[in-house]
Amino acid sequence: MIQHDALFKISYGLYILSSGNRALSNACIVNTLFQVTAEPPLFSVCCNKDNYTSEFIINSGFFVASVLEINTPSDIFGRFGYKSGRDIDKFHGMEIQYSENSVPYIVNSSLAFMEYKLINTYDLKTHWMFIGQLLNAEILNPNLEPITYLHYKQTRNAVSPKNAPTYIAMNNSASATDTFSEKSRYKCTACGYVYEEKDHSYSFSALPEDWLCPVCGAGKEDFIML
Amino acid sequence: MIQHDALFKISYGLYILSSGNRALSNACIVNTLFQVTAEPPLFSVCCNKDNYTSEFIINSGFFVASVLEINTPSDIFGRFGYKSGRDIDKFHGMEIQYSENSVPYIVNSSLAFMEYKLINTYDLKTHWMFIGQLLNAEILNPNLEPITYLHYKQTRNAVSPKNAPTYIAMNNSASATDTFSEKSRYKCTACGYVYEEKDHSYSFSALPEDWLCPVCGAGKEDFIML
Repeated sequence: MIQHDALFKISYGLYILSSGNRALSNACIVNTLFQVTAEPPLFSVCCNKDNYTSEFIINSGFFVASVLEINTPSDIFGRFGYKSGRDIDKFHGMEIQYSENSVPYIVNSSLAFMEYKLINTYDLKTHWMFIGQLLNAEILNPNLEPITYLHYKQTRNAVSPKNAPTYIAMNNSASATDTFSEKSRYKCTACGYVYEEKDHSYSFSALPEDWLCPVCGAGKEDFIML
Repeated sequence: MIQHDALFKISYGLYILSSGNRALSNACIVNTLFQVTAEPPLFSVCCNKDNYTSEFIINSGFFVASVLEINTPSDIFGRFGYKSGRDIDKFHGMEIQYSENSVPYIVNSSLAFMEYKLINTYDLKTHWMFIGQLLNAEILNPNLEPITYLHYKQTRNAVSPKNAPTYIAMNNSASATDTFSEKSRYKCTACGYVYEEKDHSYSFSALPEDWLCPVCGAGKEDFIML
């Protein structure tokens, strides 16, 4: 028996994983960053094979993880977690710095960053597991607290993007909480978030036109009625 | 440059990793458990090659992770995190249940458990990375909150055991906080915790003889003056 709620008891942080160079680069949000050995300091991170960022990591051999803070706004999650760098320039308008090996990384909402050299890649069928040796690690803002995946999920009623390791578990759990309601439900086609009218003071149609999906920052026009 | 404080911004939980059977088994505390793919549901966990538990996982092909709760007492960390199953029977006196494949797991201070079948092992020099396919996952106590590594470290002034992936980073950080004091300092030889007399109302010698290390539960006789 697999109770999906049990899987939500595993603790993760949330990070922007970036790779590339000054000319071409990409970034996405990951939760599976961990230190795996102390000497040498090796870390692992999993990334879907379809993710554009995976290509940059494999081709360049370097990557950076920025640690997101607890009050990271939804549009950061929308841009880096639910959209593809094949469709948009994810770095446009963001505050960017460059690592020693010229990997761009996001400063917005980040409290620390770590740069890695790729030393091994394991094939996990749908995902790559990248093993990186730590080159640099710096605090960007000592006063910020890191966000946890649990906090993100609890406060934003979030569902995983389809490329995430936790995708199925999240969606199974969400469906378990569905209940009958005469009010309508509107689903964000970008991230899967469902606006349940019964849980809000406003009907969906009464929301202002510049209202954004609280999970991924998509516009009102990206919602469909269920 | 590597600022070790930056590494502490990575989020981890804490788990008891157990393996073996009804006759012979062992368990240890790990922080590096995470889901790596959704379909099939694969998880990875790192374990030092010297750890007795690693032998059981490799030999039996099954393991269980119990999720520790936020108020887990120090003696659980002492027993499973800082002592070896080659020296003591870690399960003695504990509340134990058995998984579908007869792996014993700890119920004390655990809010959920997950059983895995070992499907791959990666060699990370000092550690094994075990890849396990999820077989079972159950909530043991829905009212408990999982402990995070950060919470453990902050509330118990803890240092990593020497086999942990984060060992060096933790110790470097601890040394950075050392300050001059005329009062004495006593170090736990089991886990490295330092009792700083300047931070307490009692001198070390005034502590009762049954006083235990707040990090690992070792006895007063296991301390040496620095």
